[in-house]
Amino acid sequence: MKADAEVTLRQVSIAGIGQVQVGEHWDLTLRQIGYQAIKSALDDAGMESADAVYVGNMLAESLNRQAHLGALVADFSGLRGVEAFRVEAADASGAAAFRAGVMAVASGMCDTVVVLGIEKMTDALPAETQAALALGMDREYEANHGLSQASLAALMMRRYMHEFGATLDEFAAFPVTAHENGVGNPFAMFRRAIKRETYLRAGPLAEPVNLFDSAPICDGAAAVVLTTRENASKLGLDHPIVHVIGSAVATDAVAVHDRKDPLFLEAAYLSSQRAYLQAGVTPEDIDLFELHDSFSVIAAMSLEACGFANKGEGARLAYEGGIALNGRIPISTMGGLKARGNPIGATGVYQIVEVALQLRGEAGDNQIADARIGMAQNLGGTGGTAVTHILASE
Amino acid sequence: MKADAEVTLRQVSIAGIGQVQVGEHWDLTLRQIGYQAIKSALDDAGMESADAVYVGNMLAESLNRQAHLGALVADFSGLRGVEAFRVEAADASGAAAFRAGVMAVASGMCDTVVVLGIEKMTDALPAETQAALALGMDREYEANHGLSQASLAALMMRRYMHEFGATLDEFAAFPVTAHENGVGNPFAMFRRAIKRETYLRAGPLAEPVNLFDSAPICDGAAAVVLTTRENASKLGLDHPIVHVIGSAVATDAVAVHDRKDPLFLEAAYLSSQRAYLQAGVTPEDIDLFELHDSFSVIAAMSLEACGFANKGEGARLAYEGGIALNGRIPISTMGGLKARGNPIGATGVYQIVEVALQLRGEAGDNQIADARIGMAQNLGGTGGTAVTHILASE
Repeated sequence: MKADAEVTLRQVSIAGIGQVQVGEHWDLTLRQIGYQAIKSALDDAGMESADAVYVGNMLAESLNRQAHLGALVADFSGLRGVEAFRVEAADASGAAAFRAGVMAVASGMCDTVVVLGIEKMTDALPAETQAALALGMDREYEANHGLSQASLAALMMRRYMHEFGATLDEFAAFPVTAHENGVGNPFAMFRRAIKRETYLRAGPLAEPVNLFDSAPICDGAAAVVLTTRENASKLGLDHPIVHVIGSAVATDAVAVHDRKDPLFLEAAYLSSQRAYLQAGVTPEDIDLFELHDSFSVIAAMSLEACGFANKGEGARLAYEGGIALNGRIPISTMGGLKARGNPIGATGVYQIVEVALQLRGEAGDNQIADARIGMAQNLGGTGGTAVTHILASE
Repeated sequence: MKADAEVTLRQVSIAGIGQVQVGEHWDLTLRQIGYQAIKSALDDAGMESADAVYVGNMLAESLNRQAHLGALVADFSGLRGVEAFRVEAADASGAAAFRAGVMAVASGMCDTVVVLGIEKMTDALPAETQAALALGMDREYEANHGLSQASLAALMMRRYMHEFGATLDEFAAFPVTAHENGVGNPFAMFRRAIKRETYLRAGPLAEPVNLFDSAPICDGAAAVVLTTRENASKLGLDHPIVHVIGSAVATDAVAVHDRKDPLFLEAAYLSSQRAYLQAGVTPEDIDLFELHDSFSVIAAMSLEACGFANKGEGARLAYEGGIALNGRIPISTMGGLKARGNPIGATGVYQIVEVALQLRGEAGDNQIADARIGMAQNLGGTGGTAVTHILASE
């Protein structure tokens, strides 16, 4: 990735957004849920078609026994013939598809692109779902030996508590804040606040990770319509246009034990630094941050890697109210992975939709006052891939 | 997809190519075979690193139980930290990843990109492999009812013979030519010519499709290094630079029965038309065509969809010698999917590597005289996706 301020040749903007409520959609097939999100985003952009559809998805090959989602969903959405393919970067698939969309418009190859994030997890048996989620880990060195994403998060959380003296009381702030914000989001899976005591009493998934440290299994689809800044301004839309001012992907070792420091998300650091440089901003300029709170400890480490807290102080920042809607750096403003839900390959697009809602001033009860610059970061696996986007209002 | 001659803002060129021999690589893991192709392409480009790695792969989630190949292979290839993700469009995954690479360089987001196509099919049981290949079909309307890629090809071939009076003698020209060309390709799986009689005596897979109408199960990895035309000219390489002058993806219904005409590859037609327009060429200007000969009937239909034969006359063109190395439109010049082998998600990148070899004048015994413009087309499923690239020498 080049990292200079003059990185793109055409500026890219978000003309439309759409999402379906995250939940258990047993009555809808994969292509149906995809259509709903695409239709909603195209309607929001006042469009009927696009030059391309890029689909972020991780698990459909395993859980729905369906690859080739690009052509399948484009056709079912009335867009037969357009360019389409799927992008996969484990749990970061949604944001990676958005990245492909940004490149397509910036390159001049396409004028208008629909990016869809989609995942349908609840039709499979829980054991199948867990096995599929392990595809994002290193098969030979992690998954084959019985490690799961939850057990890896547990190892990281235990070590984090040991190294930095962090407490469960501090970690509680992540799910408590997320659930509080989920109440105000009509598209969230969990619209119910929880108390700190509820968190502290919750049963363990893999100690010290408990039920509320982990994001739920669910179905979801979200979509955005990208076009050039110039095109967007001519559409005469009745909502503000949001601009992509930073876009970066970075990687790390997929296996946690291979990383230089298992408590530092190097890919999150690298991709955020590249995005800051492109956007010409610093962490102080970011008004809200939709981060990848798949587990509380990952949320804490994301805050640190992206420059919002010193190393080992991410959980404390949360505990002290820094992540609240009126805090220093609001996160999970629409519920995050924890309360909005984490439909894996769709999550990265939900994050973009939510940042756009905030920058458009349409976040309702959860509106961040004067939000002008927002950041979204989607992680693959336990941090092997990080995709960071910075969006800005006019 | 926009289709005008001024479509990209930065011109994209191929600075390096690399491939491993297609075959049964039981001694190599997925990441090892990927590293070999990447190293070989970077060496050819005189480079040690790149800004991004895009990976074309279809089946690793099913057959190797490994997703997240972008980060995994980038790390193992010594490129930890770079941008990486996987692109999937069923059997067209390799060419779709190449398309993403072209957009990344054209957009200015990246200066140098490695595109890797990779597939490792032979470690799984044949039944698992067949089930995985069915992921590229429509799950609900085709695969769930027991159709396979071979049985769909059989339905198309039978109908093609009925409609157009084509004979097995005519179809024989595809595998006979492919195997003849495989002899001269050190990276081919099958380096052995076959006689027309051998084809006519071969056992059926799904009548009328026989063993030689179908491409083999195999392992393979191929890679290319993309950069701007300007950068490429400054590298001082001892081989010619090949330029990307056309790049297009199109889709059709994934399910054959949903198409307007089951005997016309609409996506192949659309993507080739868009690529011709971008490149400012017509079929008459194409010196060689690496098409998707997964089945003989698909090769015939590809020739027709891309303007090299009238409808129903593709098999006859082959029978009359039109596809030979010295024919009107040479195809499968290094063996094609049939004899070089069809490592699914890698195939599209092998095709690009082979067109580049021809345009560089490095195709050895199989060299097309005065080859200046070559085309590669990779199909997903039975034609639900088509990715077409047109390359040119100086």
